[in-house]
Amino acid sequence: MAQIKDLLNNNTVIRPDGRAVDELRPVKITRNFTDAPEGSVLIECGNTRVMCTATFVPGVPHWRKDTGLGWVTAEYAMLPRATSDRTPRESIKGKVGGRTQEISRLIGRCLRGVVDTKALDENQVLLDCDVLQADGGTRTASVTGAYVALVDALRWAEKNKRIRSAEKVLKDQISAVSVGIIDGTPMLDLPYIEDSQAMTDMNVAMTGSGGFIEIQGTAEHRPFTREELNVLLELAEKGNKELQHAQNEALAQS
Amino acid sequence: MAQIKDLLNNNTVIRPDGRAVDELRPVKITRNFTDAPEGSVLIECGNTRVMCTATFVPGVPHWRKDTGLGWVTAEYAMLPRATSDRTPRESIKGKVGGRTQEISRLIGRCLRGVVDTKALDENQVLLDCDVLQADGGTRTASVTGAYVALVDALRWAEKNKRIRSAEKVLKDQISAVSVGIIDGTPMLDLPYIEDSQAMTDMNVAMTGSGGFIEIQGTAEHRPFTREELNVLLELAEKGNKELQHAQNEALAQS
Amino acid sequence: MAQIKDLLNNNTVIRPDGRAVDELRPVKITRNFTDAPEGSVLIECGNTRVMCTATFVPGVPHWRKDTGLGWVTAEYAMLPRATSDRTPRESIKGKVGGRTQEISRLIGRCLRGVVDTKALDENQVLLDCDVLQADGGTRTASVTGAYVALVDALRWAEKNKRIRSAEKVLKDQISAVSVGIIDGTPMLDLPYIEDSQAMTDMNVAMTGSGGFIEIQGTAEHRPFTREELNVLLELAEKGNKELQHAQNEALAQS
Amino acid sequence: MAQIKDLLNNNTVIRPDGRAVDELRPVKITRNFTDAPEGSVLIECGNTRVMCTATFVPGVPHWRKDTGLGWVTAEYAMLPRATSDRTPRESIKGKVGGRTQEISRLIGRCLRGVVDTKALDENQVLLDCDVLQADGGTRTASVTGAYVALVDALRWAEKNKRIRSAEKVLKDQISAVSVGIIDGTPMLDLPYIEDSQAMTDMNVAMTGSGGFIEIQGTAEHRPFTREELNVLLELAEKGNKELQHAQNEALAQS
Amino acid sequence: MAQIKDLLNNNTVIRPDGRAVDELRPVKITRNFTDAPEGSVLIECGNTRVMCTATFVPGVPHWRKDTGLGWVTAEYAMLPRATSDRTPRESIKGKVGGRTQEISRLIGRCLRGVVDTKALDENQVLLDCDVLQADGGTRTASVTGAYVALVDALRWAEKNKRIRSAEKVLKDQISAVSVGIIDGTPMLDLPYIEDSQAMTDMNVAMTGSGGFIEIQGTAEHRPFTREELNVLLELAEKGNKELQHAQNEALAQS
Amino acid sequence: MAQIKDLLNNNTVIRPDGRAVDELRPVKITRNFTDAPEGSVLIECGNTRVMCTATFVPGVPHWRKDTGLGWVTAEYAMLPRATSDRTPRESIKGKVGGRTQEISRLIGRCLRGVVDTKALDENQVLLDCDVLQADGGTRTASVTGAYVALVDALRWAEKNKRIRSAEKVLKDQISAVSVGIIDGTPMLDLPYIEDSQAMTDMNVAMTGSGGFIEIQGTAEHRPFTREELNVLLELAEKGNKELQHAQNEALAQS
Repeated sequence: MAQIKDLLNNNTVIRPDGRAVDELRPVKITRNFTDAPEGSVLIECGNTRVMCTATFVPGVPHWRKDTGLGWVTAEYAMLPRATSDRTPRESIKGKVGGRTQEISRLIGRCLRGVVDTKALDENQVLLDCDVLQADGGTRTASVTGAYVALVDALRWAEKNKRIRSAEKVLKDQISAVSVGIIDGTPMLDLPYIEDSQAMTDMNVAMTGSGGFIEIQGTAEHRPFTREELNVLLELAEKGNKELQHAQNEALAQS
Repeated sequence: MAQIKDLLNNNTVIRPDGRAVDELRPVKITRNFTDAPEGSVLIECGNTRVMCTATFVPGVPHWRKDTGLGWVTAEYAMLPRATSDRTPRESIKGKVGGRTQEISRLIGRCLRGVVDTKALDENQVLLDCDVLQADGGTRTASVTGAYVALVDALRWAEKNKRIRSAEKVLKDQISAVSVGIIDGTPMLDLPYIEDSQAMTDMNVAMTGSGGFIEIQGTAEHRPFTREELNVLLELAEKGNKELQHAQNEALAQS
Repeated sequence: MAQIKDLLNNNTVIRPDGRAVDELRPVKITRNFTDAPEGSVLIECGNTRVMCTATFVPGVPHWRKDTGLGWVTAEYAMLPRATSDRTPRESIKGKVGGRTQEISRLIGRCLRGVVDTKALDENQVLLDCDVLQADGGTRTASVTGAYVALVDALRWAEKNKRIRSAEKVLKDQISAVSVGIIDGTPMLDLPYIEDSQAMTDMNVAMTGSGGFIEIQGTAEHRPFTREELNVLLELAEKGNKELQHAQNEALAQS
Repeated sequence: MAQIKDLLNNNTVIRPDGRAVDELRPVKITRNFTDAPEGSVLIECGNTRVMCTATFVPGVPHWRKDTGLGWVTAEYAMLPRATSDRTPRESIKGKVGGRTQEISRLIGRCLRGVVDTKALDENQVLLDCDVLQADGGTRTASVTGAYVALVDALRWAEKNKRIRSAEKVLKDQISAVSVGIIDGTPMLDLPYIEDSQAMTDMNVAMTGSGGFIEIQGTAEHRPFTREELNVLLELAEKGNKELQHAQNEALAQS
Repeated sequence: MAQIKDLLNNNTVIRPDGRAVDELRPVKITRNFTDAPEGSVLIECGNTRVMCTATFVPGVPHWRKDTGLGWVTAEYAMLPRATSDRTPRESIKGKVGGRTQEISRLIGRCLRGVVDTKALDENQVLLDCDVLQADGGTRTASVTGAYVALVDALRWAEKNKRIRSAEKVLKDQISAVSVGIIDGTPMLDLPYIEDSQAMTDMNVAMTGSGGFIEIQGTAEHRPFTREELNVLLELAEKGNKELQHAQNEALAQS
Repeated sequence: MAQIKDLLNNNTVIRPDGRAVDELRPVKITRNFTDAPEGSVLIECGNTRVMCTATFVPGVPHWRKDTGLGWVTAEYAMLPRATSDRTPRESIKGKVGGRTQEISRLIGRCLRGVVDTKALDENQVLLDCDVLQADGGTRTASVTGAYVALVDALRWAEKNKRIRSAEKVLKDQISAVSVGIIDGTPMLDLPYIEDSQAMTDMNVAMTGSGGFIEIQGTAEHRPFTREELNVLLELAEKGNKELQHAQNEALAQS
C-alpha cells in the first residue's frame, strides 16, 4: 500500500484549478430551487450545475402493477448551451442519444440501490436531472443532487400521507463522484479539461455505509492496473464521504 | 375613449396576487447567468423563470447561403417540472409538440423583427429559451429575455470581430407581454391562474419605438369586441414600456 | 379616422390581379365535394383551393371523457404540388412541421370559438383541410371552408339522431381572411405574390355577429402602427362579412 | 379455352352496380387539374378519384449521379376522408405504413417500365398520387392517371428544353387494372364492395403493346388455379386496352 | 406448348453455378435451430440462409378481438452483413423501409393463405424471418422456412393444449420460389447475380395442392409476354413441388 | 487474502448447470460463419450465441476526417426470439432502446481500447453483434467474439493492401466476462438464471497483458464491499485468461 500513499501524496502535480489530487471542487446544494416539484435541488460542483427535481407519482408503470413494489427512475438531459459548443436538442433530433440514455439509466440504478421499493408501496418517484452548465462530472453530480431531491419528495409524501415513512423507504444514503488517471496520476473529481485528457475515467457511486452501488471505469487510451484501480477507489471513497457530508448539511436545514 | 378609461380604472377588481389590472408582475433580469453562452440571461416575471441563451454561430443555414444575410432563430422548451404536473420530455416522445413549435417560431419572428440581417452578415444567432418554472406568460418572458441575450451575443461578436457593429444589427428593441380579459375585465400580464380562466388571451410584442411586431389574440370562450381590443392594446403598450425599461437597466450594467 | 378612409380609398394602387385594395378574390364554395365525409367542401378563393372535410365521431379524446363536453379539432396539410416547388410530404419526413401544426391549431381554435361543446355532447368533429392548390391565404380559406363542412356534419348528426340540434351547437358563424401592408398600403386578401412581399401580414377570424375570435399579425419586415392596425381590421371586417355571405349562400342550397 | 369463355359469358351474375363481369367502371381523365405541376391529372374510375401530379426535377438522387440515367419515382397517399371511416394521417403517426409504401413502389416500377431513363438524361420525374375518394382500385387508377401526368410533364420538359424529346423517353404506354374472383366468378375492375369480398385479388399493369409490367395476385381466402389465372389475365387485357384508349383520348386534347 | 418445352429444354444456357435452368439450388432445412422459440428453423437455399422463428402468443391484436379468429403475421429483416455491402440497421434509421414492409406483408399473406384462423381460435403466431446471409430469393426462402416453423409452433401449441389440433389449423402446405427471365431465358430460383440481371423477376407461392396463393411479377427492364409467363409458372410449379418435398422430409424427422 | 480464497474455494455451492463457482461455460468460436463480411464469427458461451461480423470500410465518419486516425465502432442487437419471451424489434418501435445503446457503446469502447487508430489510418471497422440466442452474458460474449472478427477483418485489410499491418493496429488482445454475487457467493460467467438473481453484477473487459479496459459493476439489490470486489476481479481475471486462450486457438486455425 506504500505505492498508493505515494500516488496520493503526489505534491508535484499542479491541477489547472490549483486543487490537490484528492480534493473535491467546491460543492453547493440548494434545496427548494423551484416551487412546483416535490423535491427541487440545484447542485453545483465547481462550474457544473445540475437542476434535480423529484416528482412523486401515485401508481407504478403497468409492468410493475400489483407487485406491491414502488419504482424510482431518472431522466438526464443537457440544456443546449450547458456546453461550450451548442448541443442540438434531442427533442428536435427526434431521438434520445446513447449517452443520455446510459446516464439516465445509471442515475436510476444508483437511487434504486438505496430505496426499499416495498416501503415505497405502489408509488413512483421520477428524478429529472437537467444540466444547466457542464464542466465535467455531470452524471455524478446528478446522482448526488438527485438523492437530496428524492429525500425531499419522500418527506413531502410522508407529510401528505402518501407513504407511511420516508425513513423506511431510504435504506441508505447515496452519492457519486468521478475519479481518473491523468498523465499517470490518479485524481479526484475531474472537471472537463481533465476529463478530456484522462487515460482512465471512473464513476463510483457509494452508500453512506461505505458499500459500492455502481462502478464504471473505462480506459480508452491505456488499460489500468489493479494497483491503479485501488488508488482510484480510495479517492472515490474520500470524495463520496465529503459529498455525503454536504448532502446531510443541506438536508439538515429546514 | 371614456369607456377604456373606465375599464382601466376598475378599482373593484382584486387580482389573486393583489396587483392592479394594469400592473406588471415584478421583473428581474440576470445577465451572465451561465458562463458558456455568448449571451445568457435569466428572466423572472413573477414566478415565471426562463433561462435565455444566445449562441453566435458563424455561417447560416444552407437555404440562406450566399445571400449576404444573417439569420436569427429560437427554440423554446419546458423542463419537465416547470409545471405543476410533470410534462413528459419531448425528446422521449420523439417529437416536438405543436405548442412548442408555435412558441419557438413566435420568438424567432419577434427577434428577427428588430434585427438587420444584412448588418449581421452571414452569421446566425440561435436563441434557446428554457422554462425553469412556468406561471403564465412564458412565451412573452422568453421574447423579453431573449432580446437581452441577443444584445449580449452581438456585443460579444463585435468585441471578437465577428461582426462590425452590434448597434447596426439592432434596428430596435423588443419585448412582449400578455394581456387578457377575465370575467369581462381586461388585465395586464396574466399568471397561470388568470390565464386559464381568460375568455380572451393576447400576446403583444412591441418595439422600443412603439410599433407592433406581433399580435396574437385568441378567444376560445367568448369573442372580443373592437373596443375590448383597444383596451388590451393600451395595457400591452404600458406593459411593454415597463419591460423595455427593465431591459435597458439590465443592459446598462457592465 | 380620416386617415383610414384615405388609405382605403387609395385608387392609385394597382394590384397584380387588378383588384381594389379592399376587394376579395372570387370565392366559390362547393358542398358535397366527395361522398364519404359527413361534410365535404371545396373552397376556392382565387387560385387557392382547399378541400375541407368534417368527420363526426361519437365519443371524445380520453382527456375529455366524462366531462359532458364535445370536442372540435382540425388538421391542415398541403399536397406536395399545391405549391410551385414541390413540398416534401411530412409523412415521409416522419414529422409534422411547425407551420402545419400552427395552422392546424389555429383552425381548431377558430371553430371551437363558435361551437357550444355542451350542446355537442360527448361527440367529436374532426376537420381535415387539405390544400390542393396554394396561392396565399390557405389557412383563412381553411377556416372559412371548414365552417361550412362543420355545419353539414352537424346537420347530418342531427338528422341521424347523434345530436339533438345542430343549431344549438353552433353559437355563431365564423370565417377568416388575410390582410396585409404592401409598400405601405393596407390590402385585403393577399395572394402568394403579395403575401411574400408584405411588410405586415395578419389573419383575422370573425364571427357573424362581428366579434373577433383570432387575430394573428406579424411584422417581420417593418413594425406596424396602431393606425395601420385599425385600417387592417376595417378591411378584415369587410372581407369577413362578404365571406360569411358566401357561406350562407352555399348553405342555403339544398 | 371453352371454360374461359364460359366464365366470361356468365350472364347470371349481377354486380352491385349493374355492370357486366368484363365491364370497366366509367373512366374520366381530366388534365391540367391544377396549375402548378408540370403534369396534373384527375382520374376518376367510378367513384374512385385520384389526383396525380408529375414534378419534373433537374438532377437525380445522389446514388444515381454520373450514370447518365434519369429516374422516375412515385408517392401514393390517401386523404383522411377518402375512405368511409377516417384514416389517420401518416404524417401524424410519424411513419409511412406498409400498404402505402408497397403501392408507392408499385407505381414507380410500373412507370419506370415504360421509360427510357437514358433518354431522360439525369433528370427526375416525381409522381404524386393522392386519393381524394377511394372506392377500390386506387393503386391501379394511380398508375393509369400517373402515366398521363408523366406524359404532360415530359412534353413540358421538351417544350422548355430540359429534355430533347418526350417521345424518346416514353418507350411505351402503361395502364393498370384490378381483377378478382368473387363467389367463384372472375370479374374486371372491382369497387370496394367487391374487393372486400374477393377470394383472389389481382392487379395487372400492361403496356400499350400488350406486354406485362407487373402482376400482383393474392389469395388470402382461397388459392386460385392456373385456369382462373388465365381468365383473370384475359379480363385484365381487355380492361387495360380500354383504359389506354381513354388515356390516348385525354392526351389527344390540346 | 411446344414453345414452352423448347424454352425449358434449353441446354445451351450455362448458369454461373452450373445448374440447369429448371434446377433448384440445394435446400437444407434445420429444425430446432435455437431453443427458445416454439418453432425455430434455419433454411438454406444455396448461399441464402434465413432463420425463421415462430412465436405462439395467446390472444389477438385488439382490432381482431372477439371475432373468434386467430391471426398469423410476419416480420422480415436482414442482418447488416447479410449483404456484400453493409446495410444500415433499420432500428438506427428509426424506420422500416418499404422493401422490408413489402416482404413482411407478403410472408404474412402467404402463411395466412393456408391457415384456418377459426381453428386457431383467438391465438396469434408471429413469424420472424431474419436473413443471416443473402444470395437472392430471401423472401421466398422465408416463406418456405416460415411454414416449417409454423408447423412446429402449432404442434407445440397442440401438445401444450393451447389449440385443439394443429392439423385443423393447417388447411394446406405452402412454399415459394423465385423465377425470372435472364437474357431471354426463363430460369428457376435465381441467386443474387442472376436476380440483378433479370429482365423479369417473379415470386410464386403455391400450396401443396397446387393452387396459387401469391404471384408477384415485375418487369423493370422489358415487359414479359403471356407465353413467357406460362413458362415461368411451369418452372415455379416444379420448384415449389421440390421445396414442399424438402419441407415434408424435414417435418418427418422427430 | 485468506478470505478471497475461502470464497473461491466454496465447494458447497451447486450451480444450476453443475459448474464450479470459478468455471466458465463451454466456449466455442467459429470463424468464417458467413461469407460476405471481412470477419464473421459465431461465438457460443454455453447457450448464449452471438454472431459477430466485422466490416472494413475505407474512410472515417465526418467528425474524424483529416485526423489521420481510424475508428472502430459497434452495434449490438437481439433477434426477437433470442429471448424466452419475444422482444419486439427496435426497427418497428422506431427507436433504439437504452440497453441496446449502452451495450453497443461498451463493445465499441472495449475494442477501441486495444486498437492503435493511427496505425489503422483513416479507415473504419464496424462490428455488428447480433444475438441469436440469449442466456446471459451476451454483451461480454459480444466483446470476446468481436475481437476475433476484428482480427480477421484487419488481416483481410492487410492482405488486400488496405492497411500496412494488422499486427500494428492491434496493440493488445481483449475479452470480457461477467461475474456476480449470488446469495453472497461470487461466481464467474452467469447464465440468465443466475444473472436475474444476482445481488451484484459486473462485466469486466481485460487485455491480454492483464490490464483493465472496462469495469461495470452494479448493485441494485445490495451494495458490495471492497473485499467482494476483489474476489470478483480475481474471478474475472481467471475467466478472461481462459477466453483469450480460446480466442487464440480459434485464430491459430487457418
